[in-house]
Amino acid sequence: MSKKLLEHINFPDDIRSLQTEQLPQLAQELRRFIIDIVATKEGHLGASLGVVELTIALHYVFNTPKDLLVWDVGHQAYGHKILTGRKDIFHTNRQLNGISGFPKRSESEYDTFGVGHSSTSISAALGMAIASKINNENKHHIAVIGDASIASGMAFEALNHAGVTDANLLVILNDNAIGIDPSVGALKEYLTRMKSKRSDIEQHNIIEALNFDYSGPIDGHNLEELISELQRLKEIDGPKFLHVTTTKGKGLKQAEEDQVKYHAPGKFDKVSGDLLPNPSVSQPPKYQDVFGKTIVELAKHNEKIVGITPAMLTGSSLKFMLDAFPDRTFDVGIAEQHAVTLAAGMATQGIIPFCNIYSTFLQRAYDQVIHDVATQNLPVIFCLDRAGLVGEDGATHHGVFDLAYLRCIPNMIIFAPRNEVELRNIMYTAQLGLDHPIAIRYPRGRGITLNWQQPFEAIEIGKGQCLQEGKDVAVLSIGTIAKNVTNAINSVDSNFSIAHFDLRFVKPLDEKLLHSVFQKFDKIITIEDGTVKGGFGSAVLEFASANNYTNTIKILGIPDTFIHHGSVEELQQLCKIDTTSILNEIKTFLG
Amino acid sequence: MSKKLLEHINFPDDIRSLQTEQLPQLAQELRRFIIDIVATKEGHLGASLGVVELTIALHYVFNTPKDLLVWDVGHQAYGHKILTGRKDIFHTNRQLNGISGFPKRSESEYDTFGVGHSSTSISAALGMAIASKINNENKHHIAVIGDASIASGMAFEALNHAGVTDANLLVILNDNAIGIDPSVGALKEYLTRMKSKRSDIEQHNIIEALNFDYSGPIDGHNLEELISELQRLKEIDGPKFLHVTTTKGKGLKQAEEDQVKYHAPGKFDKVSGDLLPNPSVSQPPKYQDVFGKTIVELAKHNEKIVGITPAMLTGSSLKFMLDAFPDRTFDVGIAEQHAVTLAAGMATQGIIPFCNIYSTFLQRAYDQVIHDVATQNLPVIFCLDRAGLVGEDGATHHGVFDLAYLRCIPNMIIFAPRNEVELRNIMYTAQLGLDHPIAIRYPRGRGITLNWQQPFEAIEIGKGQCLQEGKDVAVLSIGTIAKNVTNAINSVDSNFSIAHFDLRFVKPLDEKLLHSVFQKFDKIITIEDGTVKGGFGSAVLEFASANNYTNTIKILGIPDTFIHHGSVEELQQLCKIDTTSILNEIKTFLG
Repeated sequence: MSKKLLEHINFPDDIRSLQTEQLPQLAQELRRFIIDIVATKEGHLGASLGVVELTIALHYVFNTPKDLLVWDVGHQAYGHKILTGRKDIFHTNRQLNGISGFPKRSESEYDTFGVGHSSTSISAALGMAIASKINNENKHHIAVIGDASIASGMAFEALNHAGVTDANLLVILNDNAIGIDPSVGALKEYLTRMKSKRSDIEQHNIIEALNFDYSGPIDGHNLEELISELQRLKEIDGPKFLHVTTTKGKGLKQAEEDQVKYHAPGKFDKVSGDLLPNPSVSQPPKYQDVFGKTIVELAKHNEKIVGITPAMLTGSSLKFMLDAFPDRTFDVGIAEQHAVTLAAGMATQGIIPFCNIYSTFLQRAYDQVIHDVATQNLPVIFCLDRAGLVGEDGATHHGVFDLAYLRCIPNMIIFAPRNEVELRNIMYTAQLGLDHPIAIRYPRGRGITLNWQQPFEAIEIGKGQCLQEGKDVAVLSIGTIAKNVTNAINSVDSNFSIAHFDLRFVKPLDEKLLHSVFQKFDKIITIEDGTVKGGFGSAVLEFASANNYTNTIKILGIPDTFIHHGSVEELQQLCKIDTTSILNEIKTFLG
Repeated sequence: MSKKLLEHINFPDDIRSLQTEQLPQLAQELRRFIIDIVATKEGHLGASLGVVELTIALHYVFNTPKDLLVWDVGHQAYGHKILTGRKDIFHTNRQLNGISGFPKRSESEYDTFGVGHSSTSISAALGMAIASKINNENKHHIAVIGDASIASGMAFEALNHAGVTDANLLVILNDNAIGIDPSVGALKEYLTRMKSKRSDIEQHNIIEALNFDYSGPIDGHNLEELISELQRLKEIDGPKFLHVTTTKGKGLKQAEEDQVKYHAPGKFDKVSGDLLPNPSVSQPPKYQDVFGKTIVELAKHNEKIVGITPAMLTGSSLKFMLDAFPDRTFDVGIAEQHAVTLAAGMATQGIIPFCNIYSTFLQRAYDQVIHDVATQNLPVIFCLDRAGLVGEDGATHHGVFDLAYLRCIPNMIIFAPRNEVELRNIMYTAQLGLDHPIAIRYPRGRGITLNWQQPFEAIEIGKGQCLQEGKDVAVLSIGTIAKNVTNAINSVDSNFSIAHFDLRFVKPLDEKLLHSVFQKFDKIITIEDGTVKGGFGSAVLEFASANNYTNTIKILGIPDTFIHHGSVEELQQLCKIDTTSILNEIKTFLG
């Protein structure tokens, strides 16, 4: 191979100074660069490998950053980051104080729009295109969106609007037939037909029906074809749509062959591509697997149980249910709104839906929770995965608002398990039949209990627990953050006598327990891994106010600011909800 | 005309005993019945008149309530209500303790799914259809959805899922080319082409592309054609789609000719159809008109201002902006998610978007507010219309959760004007340029100020006001509920000395003002026309806790339950935030 190109590329202008013939080599080097770093630093691999050529072609043809490029979701933007001034710091990807794993406006002028959740790119780019018209600026506006993301309702809304504008908008469909799991739905089947037998339907396809100038499908790994087509489209007015087919994981054999596992594979051997083996010591299970295995266990005995996920079969471990009960498992694609109201419709007919949605993504279906579930008091069981701080995915993915945004909804039961056994038992309890919808929120990753598959026990709704008796101060916690409280209490010197209560239910609160706490303790601390604005602590304050208690109450939790990326432990320190901070807070509080 | 049919019809079984030839007469009588009652009792007229024949045909062909019929939005379901056991109480429509203006499960087994917000019907009916399969029950499942509602993303998500199932689902598109305002968007243009020159596109239309068995368009006022087609479709397996064309307001000349005004016309002459004149006494303006006229005033001097509405041009009075600045006004259809992220995209380019969304409908774009606006701290200006209690539209439409669900979002400014002048001034302030997004929430209907078009004055962000000095107790209010507090204070006897503060900003709180209040008053009351769970009152409790105040604080607001329909005054009494209740609360609180 000729001498290295990538080492001389720092910004897109450097790419534009290359000959077209040199670009395949640059692609090869860029791919290698991504593999080498992600192999040791971890992160999203497959999506970025799939768009290496597209990334180069876009920056080659368009005049970024003046021309505005919006990446949907953004986990495919590693190549973009490396080619836009961040090559030398790419090894800090997803680490505390390092660059974000997603495009972020504060990081670079090339990151025109912050992303993380899917299906926002067309709306954002259309907004920019309309703005350019009003500002009398001659720019190009490009949204790059995957086939899983374009099937989400929001993307359809944007296409539907764009089609009646004269905005200078180019939508590029990166069609690799997979999101994190394989794409689903009628549109996906249609796109597959478009690729396999174009001529039958090209006369008037679904995209043209929405008034877009459609072209493709073209090979997204053929730089020559990509560049020539982008140059052609650059000269066309109005909304345009380019259908590009790519292979997720392109260029790393294992990543192409196991696209689900290599979406974000963790550490792997950068030469062989093989995943590095997990340590063989036995570990507590992931909460996800506790969910996935427990729903199967319950579904064996309760034929009314179904599982629903909006495109997170693997991430949520609902795949266990799919394997065991394919007819009672529904991956509806990236369609949180539909997922929730589908569950509501099922619940009207006596079906028991476990609707598993990441906490941060339930924000997408907030009205459906209120309007379709809670207003009708339908007993849908929401399992909110990845609640609290999620770590390296950062600000767009933390599940820290759920307690606040759910607590204001009448009829909701809100529960946070302290450990794996509590998660199992509340799932067991919920499928026995509740009079209300319930939200069960639990974190990403491993729990604390090796021997977690214990016999089911029903949990009394609204009943908290005393974990530790004490005299000087009462700590009220909710969910898995209890562990830090326990550790703090265990490490405090014996001068202090600290009581610890796990309220378990943010709603309804265990008022009997609270009355006894407020009558016994002058000083009360609440702690949660959710926002302090309107969350569990506020619920306790409301209880105190309604009952005329004037105890001193200190609220610990996520402060009122967006928390960026880092390890969960680092972020807990930042938010002062780690063991040491809790200990210090207790000491200060006790004076 | 032969003897009356409707008087013998109480339930769908009675319709099924009629001959097909008798149904047109029943339709005529039903239409007359609706007109006669809505003329004096008010309500949604046009939509229900448009589906009279469809309603009769559905209950004639299908075996309701065993077969499950879901009306989208539901304001077209008056005929359905009258024919399903509620004829004799239809005159109580939308009144306190009367029947709801929308289908409601608690009201009738024929109301299979509660609605009010749009675009939920396909998801709900699909959930029911899948449930019937699991339950081994042989039922039909029908969703009736309008052309404005089917363009919303959620409906697309449901179609996309349904198309890959074998669910026994019939989606009926009621295509009248109008929602409340005329429908917009590329799909609407496509549907229009389908109606005008079917043959060009019927070979493979957009619905068939999603794997539905498509038929139509057929005349939705031709009972014979409707019944024959429904009977045919009843025998077909899997997802089916029937395209029906209707005329909104059918049968009342004025309602057909002015479909926007006769959507919900208020009182009118039931014989002539003419609207009853408004009283000529001069009244304070509607907040909606204050918004609409003020944005035009501001846009004249600030060319960066645009207005965005998701299908509420008339309701929000953004139509004034459309008339004055059509190129800077965007009705994006029923697409709240897109509306918010479109605004965010514009804001990245220095445009100043006023994004006007009803408070209850912003629930539909909650994630977009968090993820696309607040995370990036983009200065989008949200105008939340119909905040607080909205009256007769009831539980699905009250805007009572906004303070709670917005307050937990970092970076947000939240303001509630006490009167028209405050609304004008905060709009003026916001377009001068803010460092944050802002939500301005104001109620439905008329304000209190005749002379409202006063010169603009900037409002200091986070600054509250003292409206009334006092000694015994401090009342802290937010928004227009201040009027009730003022009235209460004015009617209390002079033994009490009550101070009244308008905090204006729920976020950021005026901490300086609060410190002075907490230092001066032992007893503090907060009042808001929003939920007491996590709202303004909770913000004050959090302030007190963070600053170690132990004052006694009483929180007044909407209780933690869904509030049904009735006049705003009646509902305020129910929630104990009317003048008399406030007075009583103050007296009790002071002992």
